Amino acid sequence: MKVLLIGGTGTIGKSVADKLKTNHEVIIASKSTGDYKVDITSSDSIEQMYKDLSNMDAVISTTGASHFGHLSELTPELNEIAIDSKLKGQVNLVLIGQKYINEGGSFTLTTGIMMDDPILRGSSAAMANGAVASFVKSAAIELKRNIRINTVSPTVLEESLGKYGEFFKGFNPVPAAKVANAYVKSVEGAQTGQVYQVY
Amino acid sequence: MKVLLIGGTGTIGKSVADKLKTNHEVIIASKSTGDYKVDITSSDSIEQMYKDLSNMDAVISTTGASHFGHLSELTPELNEIAIDSKLKGQVNLVLIGQKYINEGGSFTLTTGIMMDDPILRGSSAAMANGAVASFVKSAAIELKRNIRINTVSPTVLEESLGKYGEFFKGFNPVPAAKVANAYVKSVEGAQTGQVYQVY
Repeated sequence: MKVLLIGGTGTIGKSVADKLKTNHEVIIASKSTGDYKVDITSSDSIEQMYKDLSNMDAVISTTGASHFGHLSELTPELNEIAIDSKLKGQVNLVLIGQKYINEGGSFTLTTGIMMDDPILRGSSAAMANGAVASFVKSAAIELKRNIRINTVSPTVLEESLGKYGEFFKGFNPVPAAKVANAYVKSVEGAQTGQVYQVY
Repeated sequence: MKVLLIGGTGTIGKSVADKLKTNHEVIIASKSTGDYKVDITSSDSIEQMYKDLSNMDAVISTTGASHFGHLSELTPELNEIAIDSKLKGQVNLVLIGQKYINEGGSFTLTTGIMMDDPILRGSSAAMANGAVASFVKSAAIELKRNIRINTVSPTVLEESLGKYGEFFKGFNPVPAAKVANAYVKSVEGAQTGQVYQVY
């Protein structure tokens, strides 16, 4: 399979790439490094990526920014970060990519545990995650040409406890390799419309 | 109680107003009619509304537009309708309103069944609904001054079958008055972070 992995330079992305590259051709796209540079907050950049990198069997997104901050300080402007990136960025990878991806291909997007199990300072990310999860469930019943779509919803990673542990006190971290398996299941399995919780 | 009802001129909004106005002062805001004109796609318009209509105990939104169309024809531009209105419009009513609403006040937003039970042509609305539902669950743990927040998720209304019945084949419609009760429960009860499904 030819796999396009957007965000393949992050902790989850690297682990997904490691697992998939033994059996598949993996092309890593990212904002600043990797094989191809793409800005998912720009529809034009996404469209250009699909034109340049044709013939994809799987598109995986392990990217998407959100502002983390207390609700009392969350302004409409700060909330736009998650809307533009984690929400619209990922949804637009599908809306635009549905025309380009190969028959029988799959999309796998990334959400996160705070949509189900809220954390302080996580309302904007929760909003974006909830949007992507509901979009995935709905898009799954309409995608044509046997194209599938799923999302992986990870909890905090063992590898990221230093950076994010303070946000996830009392949460049970999981290794990135375990989260990466859910992406492999999405790509190599046959399910669609699923939210794979790795909690 | 002083209740601000945004979208009080729609089918659900009218029914909510009917139930609440016997015991409360209900101010109806809407894009074009009602007691006050507001455009929820504009943060400035929302902020001005809260400045003009002070001292609110409950803010209810029964509004929010979405484009309904097949996924294959859903462009990023058409998807913006739901993002700007149903999603950001409702979320910004809370982000901005949290500074203005009275202590112990409540926000009640509107989502919809298609986030849980997908329909053809409903991906954009499902996305917005999922965003609002996850935002509500997360915001509930952070709102200060005993402010509460819930969302009502209705299925198709008996009163709207002529207009929307084609989208909801096989769904069991409910009367608007039954949906309106969930808003009353949110305003007059003490729960927070709830998604009241009226399916």
